[in-house]
Amino acid sequence: MDSIRVTVWGENRHEKTNPRVAALYPTGMHNAIADGLRQYPGFEVQTATLDEPEHGLTEDVLRDTDVLTWWGHLAHGDVRDDVVERVRQRVLDGMGLLVLHSGHFSKIFKTLMGTSCDLKWREAGENERIWVVEPGHPIAEGLGETIELEHEEMYGERFDIPQPETLVFLSWFKGGEVFRSGCCYSRGKGRIFYFRPGHETFPTYFHADVRRVIANAARWAAQPPSPKVVFGNAKPRETLEAVTE
Amino acid sequence: MDSIRVTVWGENRHEKTNPRVAALYPTGMHNAIADGLRQYPGFEVQTATLDEPEHGLTEDVLRDTDVLTWWGHLAHGDVRDDVVERVRQRVLDGMGLLVLHSGHFSKIFKTLMGTSCDLKWREAGENERIWVVEPGHPIAEGLGETIELEHEEMYGERFDIPQPETLVFLSWFKGGEVFRSGCCYSRGKGRIFYFRPGHETFPTYFHADVRRVIANAARWAAQPPSPKVVFGNAKPRETLEAVTE
Amino acid sequence: MDSIRVTVWGENRHEKTNPRVAALYPTGMHNAIADGLRQYPGFEVQTATLDEPEHGLTEDVLRDTDVLTWWGHLAHGDVRDDVVERVRQRVLDGMGLLVLHSGHFSKIFKTLMGTSCDLKWREAGENERIWVVEPGHPIAEGLGETIELEHEEMYGERFDIPQPETLVFLSWFKGGEVFRSGCCYSRGKGRIFYFRPGHETFPTYFHADVRRVIANAARWAAQPPSPKVVFGNAKPRETLEAVTE
Amino acid sequence: MDSIRVTVWGENRHEKTNPRVAALYPTGMHNAIADGLRQYPGFEVQTATLDEPEHGLTEDVLRDTDVLTWWGHLAHGDVRDDVVERVRQRVLDGMGLLVLHSGHFSKIFKTLMGTSCDLKWREAGENERIWVVEPGHPIAEGLGETIELEHEEMYGERFDIPQPETLVFLSWFKGGEVFRSGCCYSRGKGRIFYFRPGHETFPTYFHADVRRVIANAARWAAQPPSPKVVFGNAKPRETLEAVTE
Repeated sequence: MDSIRVTVWGENRHEKTNPRVAALYPTGMHNAIADGLRQYPGFEVQTATLDEPEHGLTEDVLRDTDVLTWWGHLAHGDVRDDVVERVRQRVLDGMGLLVLHSGHFSKIFKTLMGTSCDLKWREAGENERIWVVEPGHPIAEGLGETIELEHEEMYGERFDIPQPETLVFLSWFKGGEVFRSGCCYSRGKGRIFYFRPGHETFPTYFHADVRRVIANAARWAAQPPSPKVVFGNAKPRETLEAVTE
Repeated sequence: MDSIRVTVWGENRHEKTNPRVAALYPTGMHNAIADGLRQYPGFEVQTATLDEPEHGLTEDVLRDTDVLTWWGHLAHGDVRDDVVERVRQRVLDGMGLLVLHSGHFSKIFKTLMGTSCDLKWREAGENERIWVVEPGHPIAEGLGETIELEHEEMYGERFDIPQPETLVFLSWFKGGEVFRSGCCYSRGKGRIFYFRPGHETFPTYFHADVRRVIANAARWAAQPPSPKVVFGNAKPRETLEAVTE
Repeated sequence: MDSIRVTVWGENRHEKTNPRVAALYPTGMHNAIADGLRQYPGFEVQTATLDEPEHGLTEDVLRDTDVLTWWGHLAHGDVRDDVVERVRQRVLDGMGLLVLHSGHFSKIFKTLMGTSCDLKWREAGENERIWVVEPGHPIAEGLGETIELEHEEMYGERFDIPQPETLVFLSWFKGGEVFRSGCCYSRGKGRIFYFRPGHETFPTYFHADVRRVIANAARWAAQPPSPKVVFGNAKPRETLEAVTE
Repeated sequence: MDSIRVTVWGENRHEKTNPRVAALYPTGMHNAIADGLRQYPGFEVQTATLDEPEHGLTEDVLRDTDVLTWWGHLAHGDVRDDVVERVRQRVLDGMGLLVLHSGHFSKIFKTLMGTSCDLKWREAGENERIWVVEPGHPIAEGLGETIELEHEEMYGERFDIPQPETLVFLSWFKGGEVFRSGCCYSRGKGRIFYFRPGHETFPTYFHADVRRVIANAARWAAQPPSPKVVFGNAKPRETLEAVTE
């Protein structure tokens, strides 16, 4: 595989209305995420946002995207259903998808999971410690035992998701909760990774380890063209005697 | 748990239009499935069909259903979206769901899986041999090593489903295909089992082992009331110092 | 299934040498565990301990055991290899196994898992909060959202186990760690559940919720006789033409 | 990662005693496997065999091995237990392991799985069709829908293994059996892949698709150095008040 083409999708609304978010992310959260990926070799990164035509996710853009990252929060309902369905088809056809933080409630994640994707939350700025539970997994490459985030929003279990195919990270929150923070899935020929941290009022997407995880996950989710799958009516591969039914 | 309340849902259209199906299943496929369950103790069985008001799946019926079985084929599109969503919510809340044969393409299965649920198929009446790959699983209780079906429709891989949490059965078809025939999932607090055989032109639902599997699966999928899950804003369980953000 | 025959195995050494443990568990930890099970209907409970002949786990005892619970800590090395192998064979043949707390380092658990089963630990008597992450699982029946233990030993990730088939519980520790506390496996025809709490210097096995989990897990792990499995040379099920090799 | 260092381990006994095997594999089966890997860029391949000192698997060799492939059949019992334990420790520390065909009964596979790894078998030279069930998995890259092997030994279910973390391939045999033919596991920080075909009396390891799968699997199993894992007594990460126990 040559370079991995990543499209970083951002809702980009908080940045326009909340001065604190605008101060933290002056070019938008999506650009902080994109810049984090650009620190690593092997990626071609572009961005797309909600208020662009077709949310920036045209057929052409998706066809040329190996991995899509998704951050949304207050405007999940504004995402067009036909674009969600287009993204879903590309995932089933092999595109990787990284769902970030409040993206747990996005249409695209909920439709791929089939569950409510609901959870507990609290904005108290408490510290989060993300533990690596599968140190041999490629998404954990280069990390230490934990990722320490001084201030984050809390997400707590029960997280109503299908059980992950692999659980890479677990979060500890000072207020007493735990959370499955790094969850791998495959759907169709595509790979999906949910990664918890990233509240808009904290500089999480500048954190070196968070950026590393996103880069690792993008590499893990990127796929070479996979075998064509044939569905529908199929001739027998072996001789079948005629059946008199 | 007292007796398990099973609602057997049937599309019940082939039976009205195809004399061969009507001959095989004079009271409808749903009644053959229901009668199979009634051979085992511990079930209270009722049926519901597509052409009843609300497809027979009112709020009241679903609230009093521990396990729903689903057979549909030619009229998936006629099932109302609001009823599908109602069933989905009941599954997430703990109702078991057994999806039978061509139910793989039902709205309820596809929405819970998130994938296309597509597959290969062939109507040649060839023989199917279902191998037990997890003999220790409760759904395999009382079976031998295989279930032998003299004539069945073929379903072949690639079956586009999320990988099963447990794969209980695998099918061998004389024409050269294999299929993941018994697939366990959990979604929300509900348990889902997909079971492959059951083409409408064969007497599959009178087969003793097929009936046994459906009874075993209904027992596995039936749940006692599970812990209430609280989502949303959560107070800390431990003392948090005030954070000056 | 009639009543479930549980054998509660205890190392029973701390109780003889540590006055604090003896005071907490005057009849031994195994009897506290056994008494907890006896609070629930449907169990026939007996105990066995390390210092009995064959550790109390004769062929006869194991043959008549549906579920074995295992607590050991300081004397894992004193358990005879031939008894471990005998237990392993019974598990593969369908006996349930509940591995409790420091049993993570027992020969029987390590040999069934294939990994080191190592972890972090700390004896600081801090509080543990066990979160239910799969509220629909039968092992969580009757619980609330958490189990609160005022004082426990800490176990922390990385826990070097194969990834659980189902992860039912996660622990939060005040000192900053998390742990996969309720882990389901199947091996052969047997079911295995690892449950974390139970340090010998705390009254954990008198805790109502801990007792409930052990009873639920015993029910989950108990299996009716499963299909006989035939291994080895096999005649074809279908006609094979002679192959001239 | 630079090139992947693969050590191809072969029992190399049939080749010395069975003229038919010697004719098919004049330089040994291990060299056919090694040559297959050398057709792909990015591998450094060496071989090791049973009758070398320490079976060719010294501490030095293993330290410099990213992925080990294992083929053995008639002499599993001749493999030294200390070498098996050495290999196991390297797998837990991150080395990949590809277990081929009759390697299902090797000490190293059985000890890592914890189960009997038994199965059905038949030497009738019937045809095998390996179906890709996870076309999006990197081990399936570049394949078609099936791998067709004109003559192979049959292996049939029940295959007594822990359920695979991912099941990539399923085999169909003309005689009526099915088999889970491509099984992914992780143990410790290492990745393990079991791949079914490869009976010594057939030219399976010259088959282009079989070679491709082994190369794909070696790439999948090779890991960059993973995070160091710290086990044992751990200081709290957060302030703990003194506990008066």
